[in-house]
Amino acid sequence: MLAVKISSGAASMIKTSKPRPRAGHALLRLRLAGICNTDIELLRGYYGFSGIPGHEFVADVVDSANPKWIGKRVAGEINLACGKCEYCLQGLGRHCPNRTVLGIVKHPGAFAEYLTLPEENLRVVPKDIPDEHAVFTEPIAAACEILEQVRFAPDTTVAVLGDGKLGLLIAQVLRIKGLAVHLYGRNPGKLSIVEPLGIKTRLLSRHEPKLPKAAYTCVIDATGSAIGFEHALDLVKPRGTIVMKSTVAEPIHIDAARCIVNEISLIGSRCGRFEPSLRLLKSRKLILDPLISGRFPLREATSALEQAQQPGVLKVLLDPSL
Amino acid sequence: MLAVKISSGAASMIKTSKPRPRAGHALLRLRLAGICNTDIELLRGYYGFSGIPGHEFVADVVDSANPKWIGKRVAGEINLACGKCEYCLQGLGRHCPNRTVLGIVKHPGAFAEYLTLPEENLRVVPKDIPDEHAVFTEPIAAACEILEQVRFAPDTTVAVLGDGKLGLLIAQVLRIKGLAVHLYGRNPGKLSIVEPLGIKTRLLSRHEPKLPKAAYTCVIDATGSAIGFEHALDLVKPRGTIVMKSTVAEPIHIDAARCIVNEISLIGSRCGRFEPSLRLLKSRKLILDPLISGRFPLREATSALEQAQQPGVLKVLLDPSL
Repeated sequence: MLAVKISSGAASMIKTSKPRPRAGHALLRLRLAGICNTDIELLRGYYGFSGIPGHEFVADVVDSANPKWIGKRVAGEINLACGKCEYCLQGLGRHCPNRTVLGIVKHPGAFAEYLTLPEENLRVVPKDIPDEHAVFTEPIAAACEILEQVRFAPDTTVAVLGDGKLGLLIAQVLRIKGLAVHLYGRNPGKLSIVEPLGIKTRLLSRHEPKLPKAAYTCVIDATGSAIGFEHALDLVKPRGTIVMKSTVAEPIHIDAARCIVNEISLIGSRCGRFEPSLRLLKSRKLILDPLISGRFPLREATSALEQAQQPGVLKVLLDPSL
Repeated sequence: MLAVKISSGAASMIKTSKPRPRAGHALLRLRLAGICNTDIELLRGYYGFSGIPGHEFVADVVDSANPKWIGKRVAGEINLACGKCEYCLQGLGRHCPNRTVLGIVKHPGAFAEYLTLPEENLRVVPKDIPDEHAVFTEPIAAACEILEQVRFAPDTTVAVLGDGKLGLLIAQVLRIKGLAVHLYGRNPGKLSIVEPLGIKTRLLSRHEPKLPKAAYTCVIDATGSAIGFEHALDLVKPRGTIVMKSTVAEPIHIDAARCIVNEISLIGSRCGRFEPSLRLLKSRKLILDPLISGRFPLREATSALEQAQQPGVLKVLLDPSL
């Protein structure tokens, strides 16, 4: 089969044998995959990754010991958990210390014609969700995770920092859940995408961002930069919460005295459950089409990865059928 | 009156006029004051402080427009709030942006024969609490604050890092509230003080501290050092909470990716309400006498401040009656 391989900080196309699913795993044929910033970070060598990347996908089940799965169109939870540890027993397989992670940690990813996943990771995609939306299941689940970690008073106004893919999804999820949302970003075109939902947007100047001080009880940092965290600290009120949503490869310097004096809570947030995400997708309330900047044949994945790194580009998709 | 003055990073005794209380403020005569690490930091010039320090005290009300206060023995909340802003209206005057702070920010402190405070800041000390315990009201309130910020499952085991004054109080408060507590520190004598309460203690070697990895759902950092925060990150489980309890003058470098991947919550924690603290003091369950390392006449406060900075020394008291 055709697959993308990252090795020594470079991506290439390879021909490799179709994966053979282990017991309890299903064989999936890719329908569509999405490129995430994490894939770009793997490509840049931040985590010494070598292998097939890709963890945002929609696929058809083509082989499974359990016949009920065969032919189903699925999304898949990306953490492959042991099922036995204290985290797994609490339903927190996403934190299983023995886990592998699809396309990230020791399990070949979705940028390939075929992939495997444990059947318990599969979630059937309702038929009225098109592939182009289903491929967002994983990042929307990551946005929904915030709602499981933070309790919002009903009249809360939340600031979301960052108008990248994740910031645009987070702003939408919080808005659809009834919160007032102010989205801060640097790109007027990206900001305007979500305005029809009633999200207020704030354009920041690149050189002298003017941010209101101590203005929000909750600030979500989805900038993917250390400076974003500093802006979040400026924006948040005493006793407020900053959700750290974007992986930042560089270390962050925290003014601990400021966090302590103002009793700020900093909450790290990563993957979420797929069920709330699929429910949201089924509701068709999210604006997703303008988030798709490109769609490449799988065989042109190296060009797609180039494209995904250009300024102003949002989601780039890989389509094995093209 | 006699008072301590800090100026340009040095403490001296001064003779100054007795303060004249503003409308709504009471005049208090000091019975006993305690030296806090914050006072040492003010002395070291970390915050450019100039004035009379001191915020841990017990005193008698000697003048007030409201006769019900006169003659009362009181402790006093240290934040002088405006009473009108959104924080004050939520009962969070401790975060009032217009506040002054007794002995810390623009309001003369308790290391003096007399001090003033708004009457709404005063709390009557029940008569069965001796002065030597009442003087701990403020730091015990700071320990109790953790219970207002973090929800603990009943069977939680909490790790407290740091066997200084605050760490010893936090460990006791959490233990008395029914939690299992493991206290980590470097001083066997200090650790042993709280063992009668059923607190398990762990002696750390100074050079090669051996800490269990990902062992606690909640870790309280009361070390007052950046390395303490790193130890807390080692100790805390995925999805766990680190309470940042001690002001650290140096900036902390956070491995943000680690906090995000493991979805750690970092919670800054400062002052607390006095009521739960006074209730605890009245219960007589806290072990406080061994925490008192010295008691100096107020006029010898500069020696007391020297003493408070010596290794192994815990609370040093200032007594105007000696």
